[in-house]
Amino acid sequence: MSKQQNILIIGAGLCGSLLALRLGQRGYNVSVYEMRPDLRKVDISAGRSINLAFSNRGNKAMKLVGLEDKVKALCIPMNGRMIHDEHGNTFQSNYSGREHEYINSISRGELNALLLDEAEKHKNVNIHFNKKCKSVDFEKTTALFKDYNSKDEFVEDADIIIATDGAGSAMRKSYYLGKKFLFSFSQAYLTHGYKELSILPKENGDYKIHKNALHIWPRGSFMLIALPNLDGSFTVTLFLSYDEGEYNFNNLTTEDKVLEFFQNQFPDALAVMPNLLEDFFENPTAPLGTIKCSPWHYQGNTLLMGDAAHAIVPFYGQGMNASFEDVVEFDKVLDQNLGDWETTFKAYENTRKKDTDAIADLAIDNFHEMKGHVNHAIFQEKRKLEMALEKEFPNAYSSKYSLVTFNEAIGYKEAMLKGRAQDKAIINMLSDKEIDIKGNLKDILDKVKTETEAILEDDRIAGLNQ
Amino acid sequence: MSKQQNILIIGAGLCGSLLALRLGQRGYNVSVYEMRPDLRKVDISAGRSINLAFSNRGNKAMKLVGLEDKVKALCIPMNGRMIHDEHGNTFQSNYSGREHEYINSISRGELNALLLDEAEKHKNVNIHFNKKCKSVDFEKTTALFKDYNSKDEFVEDADIIIATDGAGSAMRKSYYLGKKFLFSFSQAYLTHGYKELSILPKENGDYKIHKNALHIWPRGSFMLIALPNLDGSFTVTLFLSYDEGEYNFNNLTTEDKVLEFFQNQFPDALAVMPNLLEDFFENPTAPLGTIKCSPWHYQGNTLLMGDAAHAIVPFYGQGMNASFEDVVEFDKVLDQNLGDWETTFKAYENTRKKDTDAIADLAIDNFHEMKGHVNHAIFQEKRKLEMALEKEFPNAYSSKYSLVTFNEAIGYKEAMLKGRAQDKAIINMLSDKEIDIKGNLKDILDKVKTETEAILEDDRIAGLNQ
Repeated sequence: MSKQQNILIIGAGLCGSLLALRLGQRGYNVSVYEMRPDLRKVDISAGRSINLAFSNRGNKAMKLVGLEDKVKALCIPMNGRMIHDEHGNTFQSNYSGREHEYINSISRGELNALLLDEAEKHKNVNIHFNKKCKSVDFEKTTALFKDYNSKDEFVEDADIIIATDGAGSAMRKSYYLGKKFLFSFSQAYLTHGYKELSILPKENGDYKIHKNALHIWPRGSFMLIALPNLDGSFTVTLFLSYDEGEYNFNNLTTEDKVLEFFQNQFPDALAVMPNLLEDFFENPTAPLGTIKCSPWHYQGNTLLMGDAAHAIVPFYGQGMNASFEDVVEFDKVLDQNLGDWETTFKAYENTRKKDTDAIADLAIDNFHEMKGHVNHAIFQEKRKLEMALEKEFPNAYSSKYSLVTFNEAIGYKEAMLKGRAQDKAIINMLSDKEIDIKGNLKDILDKVKTETEAILEDDRIAGLNQ
Repeated sequence: MSKQQNILIIGAGLCGSLLALRLGQRGYNVSVYEMRPDLRKVDISAGRSINLAFSNRGNKAMKLVGLEDKVKALCIPMNGRMIHDEHGNTFQSNYSGREHEYINSISRGELNALLLDEAEKHKNVNIHFNKKCKSVDFEKTTALFKDYNSKDEFVEDADIIIATDGAGSAMRKSYYLGKKFLFSFSQAYLTHGYKELSILPKENGDYKIHKNALHIWPRGSFMLIALPNLDGSFTVTLFLSYDEGEYNFNNLTTEDKVLEFFQNQFPDALAVMPNLLEDFFENPTAPLGTIKCSPWHYQGNTLLMGDAAHAIVPFYGQGMNASFEDVVEFDKVLDQNLGDWETTFKAYENTRKKDTDAIADLAIDNFHEMKGHVNHAIFQEKRKLEMALEKEFPNAYSSKYSLVTFNEAIGYKEAMLKGRAQDKAIINMLSDKEIDIKGNLKDILDKVKTETEAILEDDRIAGLNQ
């Protein structure tokens, strides 16, 4: 594990370029191979999410590599969800009762470019584009690449290989197909897919709808969302079933039908999307999958990180944040100087996997919450109560959303267990009229804390919290 | 879906031969292709579980096809678990407080042979052996086979194909590799593997240890179990980690070490296993995996059933029972005459998958219970209490084990939800001293029922029971 070791990173996306930067800062010899062209020279955004939610866990990583200020300049704060109902009415539901807690919309391309620039400032970091990884021989610690320009295939050798090549990881596929060890693996698709659309800026460059919010049009079994971009536009995403319900991706095949769907369901959005039909029929429909696997490493030779190890659905806005946090956690394990890579990889997976499993499950829960529950009376009452508690007792109360998104000092698993118990406590007490939003807030806080602790304790005794 | 339709079944194991029999009884033209030789002519048991737990859900299927009495003749009742502690002390823990509720040990080979014999009595059922399925073209509804004798490959066509080819299903692999539709899939391995051993009969043919029990030697992180065979022997299975703990499969490589392990941990078992070393080094070590997937069907062309759709770990004794219940549930859907195969397959998966997911999770829970909890004071107190409740109130109380194993009128999912809530209620009330095993049983029953319903209701309101 000496600094002269050669580390090969597969994939120079958000996770790979951050990892290259951090390992470069630590003095390792780092070679990165990326299948796409250099996004600083070619526009390759078509069809992919062009903006993402960036929050505290991601920022923790930016602090680690000294980029907090540069990244802040790319961020558009979103203080809450702006809910749009069927009649075009809107109301904002903040993410936290504490004013300094909000999430940000950030451009995937701009952020990736910044990380590549910073990584390349280290002369011990070399990044190669247009080199697609075809497979990894994890026993020999070599990777097979194909050069997109020359069409040549070549093999690269390294002391260790870390694959950050995303949800479709070539190295994970080699683990699966190799059958050299027991590899637990799951891919789980939602019945819904997604399609990206857009709200373009006004002619004067202004935003057509409120800039500082994550807009949601929840409709029970489907929804539309929109996140702002720095150029005055919004990236809009439609989440819809492939084949169920009156309108679905399989039957939205004509311009008339698409217009009818938006006219019926999202009239206020349609009014600011004159380019809807063009977007709808030009952009692909993509699936929503969760990937989990284990082990992430093969002995001390190879390691999966980021989406390659744990791809999640986008509904908690944590995909990028979780991958960035991977690098922070890996860096902490490196600080422990465990002596060899196998021990290091094992320690990293032991501390990290429980948390990436948790955010995967939380993201699926939030899918149901966003498309449906945000509209339900009892959910809205709970949110109102939690906002009031966070505002009144900023140091004593955090909702599940806050625990996951803004409390970067605890892991996702702890946030999930505590957050779910709190949700259960509040919803049951509201439903049983044991608490009332008009009651004394200090009494409510005490009741929520007591009931939450009782739920956690009952689960612990029954062995349900492992 | 007329009776003249040709149905191709891949695999003539327990599920496939039962399915062939039932579809034969219903009048379909059934062709079955099995990769192994005919087990009625060749002994192919080596290394596979040679006995299995047979209980009510399996028996429901035997009733459906009119084989209840013939199967009963193959059964050895096991009334409970016989626990063997480290010092060789034993105590029996019955499976139910109701005397007529017990599970059975049955020979896989004998039962399979019976089902094959009965299926072949129908002249519309044809079974072909030594024909290995290599892949399925689910769009064309054809399957590619290789004949083990002639080495020829050939393609078979059918109106529908049902794959009952077990955990390593060739058709499921074709679904996965085909990438023609979104196929959710998971394979999850335990850190433990298993190895089969044996306790041979006495010279006079008698059983060396108590016949009518499932013997367990629980040791916290590993265990040994034994099930009786009709010939006076027991099939013994060692469940042990591959690489953790002082003794594991990776380091049990010498005769001395294996003997030392058994001498330390299972002295009473070792005393009746003079053939231990031979068994240990001749028999393979096999992994323990859970497989889930969805969808099970491709349009109206193909369907996965049994282990091919949902392989589970063996710790609830429900693997075969679940596969047999698949056939009962599929038969019920056929009775509905839904008009076409796609609607039929979809209806079957909609009613069935929630239950096979549940038994998969229950089986993993039971792994931890069997190797550890059965030895814990609070667990033993709970079991004692539940036995007393079942005995005193045979119509009003069933433990989780009874709900899963003996209440075949409800599905696994319902059994799991109710059983887990009951467990949580009892363990928490015992731990809080709200109930005491010496108290009035009717009071305890009322408290358990009230608390269980409260737990289920709280979970329902919080949306946790989906």
